[in-house]
Amino acid sequence: MLKPIKSITSYSQLYRLIKDIFRNFSNPFEGKDVISLDQFDKTSIIRLFKETEELKKSNPKELLEILKGKVAALVFFEPSTRTFSSNTAAFKRLGGQTIEHQNPLVTSSAVKGESIEDMAKMLEQYCDVIVMRHPIKGTLEKVAEAVEIPVINAGDGIGEHPTQALLDMFTIWEKFKKLNGLKGLMAGDMLNGRTVHSVIRGLSIFPGNTIYLLSPKELRLSREEFKLYSERGIKLIEIESTKDIPPDCNFWYWTRVQKERFSDKRVYERLKLSFILTKKLVNGKAGKNTLLMHPLPRVGEIETAVDADKRAVYLTTEPKNGMYVRMTLFKLILNNK
Amino acid sequence: MLKPIKSITSYSQLYRLIKDIFRNFSNPFEGKDVISLDQFDKTSIIRLFKETEELKKSNPKELLEILKGKVAALVFFEPSTRTFSSNTAAFKRLGGQTIEHQNPLVTSSAVKGESIEDMAKMLEQYCDVIVMRHPIKGTLEKVAEAVEIPVINAGDGIGEHPTQALLDMFTIWEKFKKLNGLKGLMAGDMLNGRTVHSVIRGLSIFPGNTIYLLSPKELRLSREEFKLYSERGIKLIEIESTKDIPPDCNFWYWTRVQKERFSDKRVYERLKLSFILTKKLVNGKAGKNTLLMHPLPRVGEIETAVDADKRAVYLTTEPKNGMYVRMTLFKLILNNK
Amino acid sequence: MLKPIKSITSYSQLYRLIKDIFRNFSNPFEGKDVISLDQFDKTSIIRLFKETEELKKSNPKELLEILKGKVAALVFFEPSTRTFSSNTAAFKRLGGQTIEHQNPLVTSSAVKGESIEDMAKMLEQYCDVIVMRHPIKGTLEKVAEAVEIPVINAGDGIGEHPTQALLDMFTIWEKFKKLNGLKGLMAGDMLNGRTVHSVIRGLSIFPGNTIYLLSPKELRLSREEFKLYSERGIKLIEIESTKDIPPDCNFWYWTRVQKERFSDKRVYERLKLSFILTKKLVNGKAGKNTLLMHPLPRVGEIETAVDADKRAVYLTTEPKNGMYVRMTLFKLILNNK
Repeated sequence: MLKPIKSITSYSQLYRLIKDIFRNFSNPFEGKDVISLDQFDKTSIIRLFKETEELKKSNPKELLEILKGKVAALVFFEPSTRTFSSNTAAFKRLGGQTIEHQNPLVTSSAVKGESIEDMAKMLEQYCDVIVMRHPIKGTLEKVAEAVEIPVINAGDGIGEHPTQALLDMFTIWEKFKKLNGLKGLMAGDMLNGRTVHSVIRGLSIFPGNTIYLLSPKELRLSREEFKLYSERGIKLIEIESTKDIPPDCNFWYWTRVQKERFSDKRVYERLKLSFILTKKLVNGKAGKNTLLMHPLPRVGEIETAVDADKRAVYLTTEPKNGMYVRMTLFKLILNNK
Repeated sequence: MLKPIKSITSYSQLYRLIKDIFRNFSNPFEGKDVISLDQFDKTSIIRLFKETEELKKSNPKELLEILKGKVAALVFFEPSTRTFSSNTAAFKRLGGQTIEHQNPLVTSSAVKGESIEDMAKMLEQYCDVIVMRHPIKGTLEKVAEAVEIPVINAGDGIGEHPTQALLDMFTIWEKFKKLNGLKGLMAGDMLNGRTVHSVIRGLSIFPGNTIYLLSPKELRLSREEFKLYSERGIKLIEIESTKDIPPDCNFWYWTRVQKERFSDKRVYERLKLSFILTKKLVNGKAGKNTLLMHPLPRVGEIETAVDADKRAVYLTTEPKNGMYVRMTLFKLILNNK
Repeated sequence: MLKPIKSITSYSQLYRLIKDIFRNFSNPFEGKDVISLDQFDKTSIIRLFKETEELKKSNPKELLEILKGKVAALVFFEPSTRTFSSNTAAFKRLGGQTIEHQNPLVTSSAVKGESIEDMAKMLEQYCDVIVMRHPIKGTLEKVAEAVEIPVINAGDGIGEHPTQALLDMFTIWEKFKKLNGLKGLMAGDMLNGRTVHSVIRGLSIFPGNTIYLLSPKELRLSREEFKLYSERGIKLIEIESTKDIPPDCNFWYWTRVQKERFSDKRVYERLKLSFILTKKLVNGKAGKNTLLMHPLPRVGEIETAVDADKRAVYLTTEPKNGMYVRMTLFKLILNNK
């Protein structure tokens, strides 16, 4: 979004702008959309994570007061159990209620040819926040511009999935109590992995981070993105063999090769299991405190034998944290009084 | 429904009938089905609208007590985001809970060949009210007769959609504080538009109303319906050109040509945009207080440039009122004590 | 499941085992999975039923406190309105909230090739109990072993549907205040009827029960199952004509021929209406107190004329009891404090 160049033309407008500044001062999240990780600065991220840490310790019954009387519309134009379940649970565990649409292409007015903006404006009349997944990159920005209420991007095709990145970053922060000076490994599909891009984007906000990118040549980060992130200050080192994994990483972030983004399924078949996280590899190369992460679902790129390893958080802490980070975001954005 | 001619054969039956009369006296909505607009008289409609006006001013958290402990089954055999979302939000904003079935033809016992009456009787054991949309006209009446709990028609094919008509009438009443002596315009698909029929039906309950019907010849009201409504006292004037729109209408009610009701798609293509609500038309022909209405979804028959006009309520007040009218109906019908 | 032969190797393990025994002493349901009726003993079943009887008398608003703050994941891989609605209503009437997935094969990560165990582990992070229906027998046992939270089998193909059996047994117990020394009739599809197997299994726990099995030869109980149940002490008598129905049964349990289990649809067509429950049959052969039962949906094997008979409970008491038995199970299993 290009920032508009606009003159202030009335006192009421001036008043509103000043009110916004004060509101933002006490809670920078209030009333905001969450479309891209680029919206966040260091202080906001750390604030979010500290509040998440607090919320995790709260009594579940007390949490039910936080969003009492609020309604979220969950609209998923693409299959999802994980993100849908996580958001539903998050909103309901805070006492809020939901309007749920899975596959609205089949069950909704979209069949009748309604525009996404009209659909969003309609939902705005019924609910307090919209959480949407859509297969086309950029759609969520359009939706956010169409309505006044907050909109949360739950994944827009090859675009972003900011709350996934935040939960991953929170999981790292919770363990190491910092987000700078980290050394990490990301493996798998660097080209199409939406969460890969979001996590790199997020870590590039903090200084002194180095990430090793392990993938077959065909699935390397696009040159544009490699350049973009590098210029933001994060150090990206591409490697092509598990032999080149450095010791004592803070985290290993494994990913699935994104079948649904391949037009030629034979290429997918050849590349899908290029790098597998095995028990042997973990024992040989991972550090004592290395977090073993994966955004899930996995389809073979992690041996189930790794699941029982104490460093493996992909089936436990990571999804659990996803719910809590989303709860905290909902709480801060809606700020129910 | 033909009224049955039945003898009272026991004291307990007599007692029940007298109890019903008293109950009806204090709240004519309690325990009733809402299948057709024909069930309502003037007094009930005005009562509903005054209660809706009150409810709109209530504190959201206090509303949560009204349906606490109640469960609604929402069963939609046809695609809907709008009506489904509106009903869900309405029920949940009153503190009630829902059993939700979208596309039950795919996800339910209907696949196994169960009758709609059996399905309804089963749901009756679990919930306090059934809200149903079904593609076949008359189905909702069958359902209402099968069960003891209230049933609300959320659209039965080319039949009725009474709560849509009520929300439109409420929007007019809220603005002009009357439902008689009105002059309105309806444009688009008069033949197939379910909401068109319901709104005309509703306004014909009140005296002195005149409606201009603007549509291509092929999409005029059927002669039976034209005759039926006219006999009820509403003045219907068919016009074929925007030039014939009279000045100072209380409302313009635009509608979508109902693609799903056409067997020949070429006819649909030719007629679909016969009349478009443009900014130019609004500036030239609408009055200062003319409400610009549309039941939505729209698929091109209203220019988006009209959206910002203060008289345009289709994206804002109309859907918002839909939720509030439904909330008030649920409240009155279930009368939770 | 074979019982493992394991040594106790630490004091903390010993402590945990003793704690479990005490917990089990006060509430044998707490934290348990419900996968098969074989898990239940006589005392547990009677306890469950007595608590259900109490719960049915409770004030609906007070029930809302019982599962406040709890979340259930309802994951149905096969179509269902009945079981889905019943479970949803049960959980919500106790004040709990739900994560709902109908047809997750279409709307979820299952499309991306995720294993059922991974899916369950993920849901475990968001919710307190999983209720799942799956077309493949044995899946629910796998799920229960994958996660720590309780898992409830809502039907696993030709396997079991334990809560259906429990609601049927409760309906019998509620009427006759005993589950031993009963004489019953089961009619229809003895081979494929999942609920048939579960009810026989359940009644075989109690002494002195006799069940007449009325079905065409092709749909008789498999010889293995006939032998298995008979050895458990229940007396099974196969009959092939309504003439052989004995007088004064405690219940008649009619069932649908399971179309979806037939590979040859012609065989289904020939057998589907072998035995029909008619008014004439009821008047001729049923006792004064015989409960007329059916797990529903029905597709012609019960005349609608039978519905009004006071002994017919399939459309009323049976589904209503289903909700209450599930409420009581949820309450005991989750034991929210």
